[in-house]
Amino acid sequence: MQYRTIKFNHGVLKLIDQRKLPLELRYYEARNYKEVESAIASMVIRGAPAIGAAAAYGVYLAAFEYRDLPRETFLAKVLEADTELAKARPTAVNLSWAIKKMERVLDNNQNETIDTILTALLNEADKIAEQDIETNMAMARYGNEIVPEKAAILTHCNAGALATVDYGTALGVIRKAHYSGKKITVYADETRPRLQGARLTAFELVEEGIPATLIADSAAATLLRDGKIDLVLVGADRIAANGDTANKIGTYMLSEIASKYRIPFYIVAPTSTIDFNISSGEEIAIEERSPEEITKIQGVRIAPEGINVYNPAFDVTPAENITGIITEKGIIHPPLAAGINSLKNEKGVMKN
Amino acid sequence: MQYRTIKFNHGVLKLIDQRKLPLELRYYEARNYKEVESAIASMVIRGAPAIGAAAAYGVYLAAFEYRDLPRETFLAKVLEADTELAKARPTAVNLSWAIKKMERVLDNNQNETIDTILTALLNEADKIAEQDIETNMAMARYGNEIVPEKAAILTHCNAGALATVDYGTALGVIRKAHYSGKKITVYADETRPRLQGARLTAFELVEEGIPATLIADSAAATLLRDGKIDLVLVGADRIAANGDTANKIGTYMLSEIASKYRIPFYIVAPTSTIDFNISSGEEIAIEERSPEEITKIQGVRIAPEGINVYNPAFDVTPAENITGIITEKGIIHPPLAAGINSLKNEKGVMKN
Repeated sequence: MQYRTIKFNHGVLKLIDQRKLPLELRYYEARNYKEVESAIASMVIRGAPAIGAAAAYGVYLAAFEYRDLPRETFLAKVLEADTELAKARPTAVNLSWAIKKMERVLDNNQNETIDTILTALLNEADKIAEQDIETNMAMARYGNEIVPEKAAILTHCNAGALATVDYGTALGVIRKAHYSGKKITVYADETRPRLQGARLTAFELVEEGIPATLIADSAAATLLRDGKIDLVLVGADRIAANGDTANKIGTYMLSEIASKYRIPFYIVAPTSTIDFNISSGEEIAIEERSPEEITKIQGVRIAPEGINVYNPAFDVTPAENITGIITEKGIIHPPLAAGINSLKNEKGVMKN
Repeated sequence: MQYRTIKFNHGVLKLIDQRKLPLELRYYEARNYKEVESAIASMVIRGAPAIGAAAAYGVYLAAFEYRDLPRETFLAKVLEADTELAKARPTAVNLSWAIKKMERVLDNNQNETIDTILTALLNEADKIAEQDIETNMAMARYGNEIVPEKAAILTHCNAGALATVDYGTALGVIRKAHYSGKKITVYADETRPRLQGARLTAFELVEEGIPATLIADSAAATLLRDGKIDLVLVGADRIAANGDTANKIGTYMLSEIASKYRIPFYIVAPTSTIDFNISSGEEIAIEERSPEEITKIQGVRIAPEGINVYNPAFDVTPAENITGIITEKGIIHPPLAAGINSLKNEKGVMKN
């Protein structure tokens, strides 16, 4: 994208404030880990890979904040901050994945000078951010192999540059297919309640001139049934060892209709999104968010006072509805459990 | 309901302005047929039965407007107004059903004095409105037979008092079940893009103290899969002779998931919603509405300029996904085509 979602310079983490898009392109500046935590919880920054990278810088900012404390206190305080950061949102496993990576660096350097520790932590956070872009590029290359020369692609939520450090996961594949000369048109679900499709995916697609049509989430089923969609590409927030995948609420419904009409349905996600510790989607904690996301839109009240609300942020798509998982290591084909299991032992894949 | 959706007094058609609910309870006053047409097209009034009753008064208002013209011109102008009214919205067949009823009265009285014609037309419109309430009561009685003593009921859009002259179709059954002492809880889909669930169904349920929870449309699929829903009740805008049913966009998707998990899925609609002239859902014209319904919410822009929009107002649920159609004549069970066919010859059912 023209803008990078996450930047770190001179002690300041700059995040594109996604609550204000597409009306305003503004940066949110976090100068300490509490501000990073708050940016993640309030969805200034969202998207599993972006949350991971932002949290890594959060760990560094905590270390920087506590640099003058005695070593033991310093180490204890940083770990305390890590725990807080890890709780900012419950579903995206990339958050704990990135924090664990940072903790490993802390652990390996615990006897070094605080200055050395700080440098090592900053390097690791930079590496996580840079690698996210490389990972997205690799997924885009693998993903492009399964995109037909001419395709109408349905996507849900925002799995774009704005959900990552740059380039995107599902939208990364779409970018790659478009720039490689394929005739791509995109249908973007608006994605209630937070409207990431209408606000963020539509923004990215319009910016880049990729032909795109915005629809209400409810309109996708008919398009799938009527043969208007050739391929579904979505991101993921957590993938269980058996391939069950948590993603934005609404994904499961798409997967059922796509499966019924045998339309290829792919998850595009880095291996850092795989939680090798859980055997199935039943173990994934689903975040429930504020009722106001449903009763108000952009601050305008739409529902009457006194109505109850149930607002889960994610749902779980069962492995059997997934045609494949496009990762930076290649495409995992069914049976997904076997493919995920063999990834476990591969170099460069950290077990969450 | 405490308020009646449609009232006609002293030459003025008073309609609860549904664009302003739930924030404001205001009446829209139509004093001529053009204002009725505009109220239907702009969705001041919506819901298939309510549209039918409003249009009937529209025909009377046209006749009243042209009462001083020579008889031939008078008759021609009223028929012209009828044609315009019938075009206000394309999918709900109750609109043309009500207009045809009014035209029959006009036809039967064409040699009477204009005053007699006017009286006959007003009586017919009043009868359509009164019968709508009776019809809803009858559907509620039949429908209540299939509602368990304790049930979580999912509904989509607004098929309530606000979609009819009073009491409602799907929500009429829910009212009846609630007041008959059954333990009913309702899950209401918010129903993008026009948010009839969040604005209107939630309003009716809160007003009457029926336990209800509002959800994003995308959350329904998981509730259905996880056994949280015992019954789905929705209205209809047009039912084909084979039972295929056009209803608010999103209904089809619910029917697929309900069907997969064998959850009873009922249409609640008067026989005036059946279009005996069309053999299947493929022949139903699906209204496409303004892109602004998607790009703006309550006047607030949410999507970037330059994005294309596809905004169908309805979708078609295939007969095989429907457990039954609850009408004022009883419940039509599968095979729906046979049940609908036998209705054709029943007294009091007008063939559209």
